[in-house]
Amino acid sequence: MPATTTAPPTKGLQDVGAGESKICYIDGDRGVLAYRGIDIHELATKSNFEEVCYLLWYGKLPNKQELSTFRQKLASERKVDAKVIDFLRQFPKSAIPMEVLRTAVSYLGPYDSARESNTHEANLNKAARLTSQIAIIVAAYDRIRKGKDVVQPDASLSHAGNFLWMLNGEKPTETAEKALDIALILHADHELNASTFAARVIAATMADMHSAVTGAIGALKGPLHGGANEAVMKILYDIDKKGQDPVDYIKEMLAAKKKVPGFGHRVYTTEDPRATHLRKMSHDLGEKDGKPKWYDMSKKIEDYMNHVNQKKLNANVDFYSASTYTTLGIDLDLFTPIFAVSRIGGWTAHIIEQHDDNRLIRPRADYTGPQHPAPYTPIEQR
Amino acid sequence: MPATTTAPPTKGLQDVGAGESKICYIDGDRGVLAYRGIDIHELATKSNFEEVCYLLWYGKLPNKQELSTFRQKLASERKVDAKVIDFLRQFPKSAIPMEVLRTAVSYLGPYDSARESNTHEANLNKAARLTSQIAIIVAAYDRIRKGKDVVQPDASLSHAGNFLWMLNGEKPTETAEKALDIALILHADHELNASTFAARVIAATMADMHSAVTGAIGALKGPLHGGANEAVMKILYDIDKKGQDPVDYIKEMLAAKKKVPGFGHRVYTTEDPRATHLRKMSHDLGEKDGKPKWYDMSKKIEDYMNHVNQKKLNANVDFYSASTYTTLGIDLDLFTPIFAVSRIGGWTAHIIEQHDDNRLIRPRADYTGPQHPAPYTPIEQR
Repeated sequence: MPATTTAPPTKGLQDVGAGESKICYIDGDRGVLAYRGIDIHELATKSNFEEVCYLLWYGKLPNKQELSTFRQKLASERKVDAKVIDFLRQFPKSAIPMEVLRTAVSYLGPYDSARESNTHEANLNKAARLTSQIAIIVAAYDRIRKGKDVVQPDASLSHAGNFLWMLNGEKPTETAEKALDIALILHADHELNASTFAARVIAATMADMHSAVTGAIGALKGPLHGGANEAVMKILYDIDKKGQDPVDYIKEMLAAKKKVPGFGHRVYTTEDPRATHLRKMSHDLGEKDGKPKWYDMSKKIEDYMNHVNQKKLNANVDFYSASTYTTLGIDLDLFTPIFAVSRIGGWTAHIIEQHDDNRLIRPRADYTGPQHPAPYTPIEQR
Repeated sequence: MPATTTAPPTKGLQDVGAGESKICYIDGDRGVLAYRGIDIHELATKSNFEEVCYLLWYGKLPNKQELSTFRQKLASERKVDAKVIDFLRQFPKSAIPMEVLRTAVSYLGPYDSARESNTHEANLNKAARLTSQIAIIVAAYDRIRKGKDVVQPDASLSHAGNFLWMLNGEKPTETAEKALDIALILHADHELNASTFAARVIAATMADMHSAVTGAIGALKGPLHGGANEAVMKILYDIDKKGQDPVDYIKEMLAAKKKVPGFGHRVYTTEDPRATHLRKMSHDLGEKDGKPKWYDMSKKIEDYMNHVNQKKLNANVDFYSASTYTTLGIDLDLFTPIFAVSRIGGWTAHIIEQHDDNRLIRPRADYTGPQHPAPYTPIEQR
C-alpha cells in the first residue's frame, strides 16, 4: 500500500515515537533529563563517566567491586596499536578530525574478531573497546596532525584524565579532569538524537556495532548536530576579534535573519538541564583561569537571547560547552570529536538495546512526485 | 515534553510517514514500484543503469545529448587511484567486502575537495563520483583479495560492463552485461528502505554525502537488509550439497520455526515487482548457460512457499537475485557489495533531496525504563 500515516506527516519525525527505550528519559517541558531514571543533575554532581557508561549499558549503578572491574576493563582496552597509528598518519593535512574518526572506527571493524556477533555479551565487550578506542584515536590524531609524538595511554588515569593526558602530553589538573569528566557525563546520552537514531536504524538491519557507530559519527559530524558548539565559538572569536559588543553582534545576526547557534532545542521548551552545569563550569573555569572573557561574553548573549522578542530562547548544551572547552585549551575542531568520546556511551547502549529486541526500522515516504504511471518516452522523442 | 505519539507506537516505524519524497513510488498492495513515476517494468525492459541514475538525480529522463554527456561524466570518474589501491591492500584477509567498502568510502572523503559542500550542484557531482568509485572499489578489492592484478577501467564500456570487466579481467558477454544492468536498475532505489533512511537521517544533520553513504553501506551490510540473497544462496548450496529435495528442505526449516530468506517484504503484500524480472533472468541465464539447477531449485521452493499455510508468502527481490548472480559466476559475498553498486544511485538521490529541503530527523522514544527520579544511591550503599 502507499504510505499510510494515521497522523498528518510531521517533517523530521518531530514528536513521533520511534520505538520503546529504557535508557534515557527526557521531559522537554520540565527540562528533565535522566539516564535509566536517574536525574542528570545527580549524575553531573555525584557520578563519573565510567560509572555513567556502566549505568547506560547495564541498566544499574555498579557497586564498588563492579566499578573497579569495569574501570580495569576500559583501561585494558586503551591500546595504541601501531597499525592504527600508521593508519592515522596516512590522512592528508586537510582531513577533518571527524572524518578521520569515522574512517578509523570503520577500519577497526575487520580487526575485531567479535565484530560479527551481535549477542548481548559481545556487544558489551565491543562497547567498552570502542569507548576506549575512540578517545585514543581522537587524541592520537590530534598529536599526529600537529607533528607531535603520540602519547602512550596511562591505565592508572580516569577516562577523562587519560584523554587529556594523551591529548596534551602532560598530566591534567584536577580541575580540568573534573570539568571534562562532567562534560562527558552530560553528553553521554540524549535519547533518539539524530546520531543515536542513525545508529539504531543501522543496527536494526542487524548490522554490526562498528557499522552503527561509524554511521553515528557521520551524523554527529553534521553542523545541525555536533557542530553547533563550534559555531558558537566561531561567533565568540569573531566578536572578540572585532571588539564588538556581544549583544550588538547578536542583534545584527538576528536582523539578518541568521540563526544564533547554541539556542533552542527540538525537545526542550525550557532550559536544557545540561546547560545549567556547563554554564557553571564555564564560569568557574574562567574565574580559576583568570580569563573569564568567554564566559562573560556568553552570559551577555544568553541574557539577551532570553528576553529577545516574545519567544524565550534557551541556551542549549552547545552554548556553554563552547566557552568551557576553549577555556580548557581545547581546539575548535576537537569539540565534536570530544562529543563522540562521550556519546559513544549512549550510542552503544542504544545499539545493544536495539539488537536485543530488534525490528527493522523502515518508515514510509509521503510520495509527492510525478503520478504513476508516468510515460517512458523513447529517447528519440525526448 | 515526553514523547507524544498521536497514534499507538508502531515498532520499527512500520507504515509511518517520515517525510515527503518525489523519488520513488511504491504501492505495496498492487505490487507497484516506480522511479519518478515511471514504472519499474518499463525501466527494467527499456532503460539502462546510467539513464536510471540520471532519472533519480535529475528527476527526468535525459535526451540523447544529456545521456551522452552524463555517460562521459560517469566514465571520467572511473579512476583507479594508487592511493586507494594501496589502502585496499592493507586489509586483513578476513575482511568482509562490505566493511572494506564502508571504510574505503569514508576514506575517500578527505580527498574530495567538494566534500563539505552540500549544494545541489556539488552533491550531483559527488553522486556521480561515488557511483563510479564504489563499483571500482568493489571490483578492485575482489581482485586484490584473490591475489590478482587490479584491472584498469575501460571508459568505453557501460557501468555494468565496466564493473564485470574490472571484476573478471575479461570482457563480459552481452547476456551477462545486460543481466547485471537490469539487476542494477531493479536495485537502484526503493524509497525509505533502511539504508536509504539511514543516509537521510545522517544527511539531515547537514553532514556531508560521504558520511551519509558510509552510514548507508553499514546499514546495507546487515543480514536483514542486504544480506538476504546471500542467505538464500547458502540454502541453495546446502540443498545441493545434501542432494535433498528442495521442498523437503524448506518444510524442515519451517517446522523448526526458521524464517525462509527471500520471502515476504515489509512493504509488498503481493508480488515484489522486481522479483518478476529476476525470476525471468534467473531462468533465462540458467537455460543459456546449460545450468538451470539453481533456477529449478528456486522455482520449486517458490511454488511451495506460495501455497504453504493460508498465508501466501511472495518471493522478494532477494530470492531470485541469488540464483541470478550465482549463474553469472559472482561470489556469494559480493552479492551485497553489488547491491551497493546499484543502490548508490538511490542513496545519493535521497541525500540530494534531503539537503535541498532539510529538517533534522529526530523522533522520540517511548520511554519504558525506571521512573524518574530514580535514586542515586551512594556507592557504599549499593
